[in-house]
Amino acid sequence: MLDQTVGSWLEDLASDAPAPGGGAAAAMNAAVGAALISMVCNLTIGKPRYAEHEPVMREALASATELRATAVQLAADDAAAFGAVTDAYKLPKDSDAQKAARTDAIQAALVGAADVPLRTAAVAASVIDLAGRIMDGANVNVLSDVAVAAASARAALDAAVINVEINLGAMKDPARRDALRVELDKHTAAVTTAAAIVAAVRERINA
Amino acid sequence: MLDQTVGSWLEDLASDAPAPGGGAAAAMNAAVGAALISMVCNLTIGKPRYAEHEPVMREALASATELRATAVQLAADDAAAFGAVTDAYKLPKDSDAQKAARTDAIQAALVGAADVPLRTAAVAASVIDLAGRIMDGANVNVLSDVAVAAASARAALDAAVINVEINLGAMKDPARRDALRVELDKHTAAVTTAAAIVAAVRERINA
Repeated sequence: MLDQTVGSWLEDLASDAPAPGGGAAAAMNAAVGAALISMVCNLTIGKPRYAEHEPVMREALASATELRATAVQLAADDAAAFGAVTDAYKLPKDSDAQKAARTDAIQAALVGAADVPLRTAAVAASVIDLAGRIMDGANVNVLSDVAVAAASARAALDAAVINVEINLGAMKDPARRDALRVELDKHTAAVTTAAAIVAAVRERINA
Repeated sequence: MLDQTVGSWLEDLASDAPAPGGGAAAAMNAAVGAALISMVCNLTIGKPRYAEHEPVMREALASATELRATAVQLAADDAAAFGAVTDAYKLPKDSDAQKAARTDAIQAALVGAADVPLRTAAVAASVIDLAGRIMDGANVNVLSDVAVAAASARAALDAAVINVEINLGAMKDPARRDALRVELDKHTAAVTTAAAIVAAVRERINA
């Protein structure tokens, strides 16, 4: 995705090709949110007026840069994991042994396919957490971008939840399903945090 | 933006350069949403099982393609409008006449700068409307992507509202402010629609 033009990536997303799809879109939303956090930090660091917030901004900048790289990688991982599921469904099912092997392969691939949006949810929640941490000390000229970052990461999180759930639905092992659901639930509270950040920024803007 | 690589666009977004910023991020979120609507339509059209929904899908595909192009254009328009505001603030203010001319130029530029996120809000609301229209007839294999499209467009709408409000805050003419607020309010109800689409898709997925 990194080396593709924006136009051609959007064209691929819009096409009937199996990937990129909603998983890559979620990763992009998370990457956009992380990039905006970086921008706000970059426009706050070095300004005397915000000197006391510089340690927080420097830490947030380092985290946001890492999260953006992870998000971009997740778009690629999503395509690979999706391909593994598709390949598993194509396995022969002529004998009982083949059927069993195919079912095992599908179930294993589904775990991999659920893992990518699970990690996307974690990245999105981390971006929202960063937005909350930099909100008070951010350069006021780019305060609105903190909210835009939170809104974009929130879309990534909403999408990731749906993308995990799609895979949960096809999984046969209830213990595995429950474990993934527990993992997912660790990140979903960030949706409320994102909404609170957007509301708080709007309040300051409209004051 | 179209001819830039995704990596370099994200790098620019993360940098301390004045543009791209939150306006371009909102436009990208809207474009991602529109592209996913196109994908769902492309994967539904031509499938006998969904034949009765084909007219809706064809219409939605045409609209989504147009909305994606508009969204991409808005990212460029945002940079231009932002530049106009920055330029206006740089005008000389040594005499009273210069001060008055500078104030007029700033106010005119702010109207232009508010117009871009206003149009982004309209595009985002239209993408959400399309998601609602294709939800029931969409290929079930990509039903989740309808929700991801709505979530991404909703982020664009949230961001656009904030970006309009930032400009409203600097505007001096109350009549102009009220008129823009009325325009903006026409689109904001789509936030609720987007949330309802995400909830409805999740309900079908988890049923």
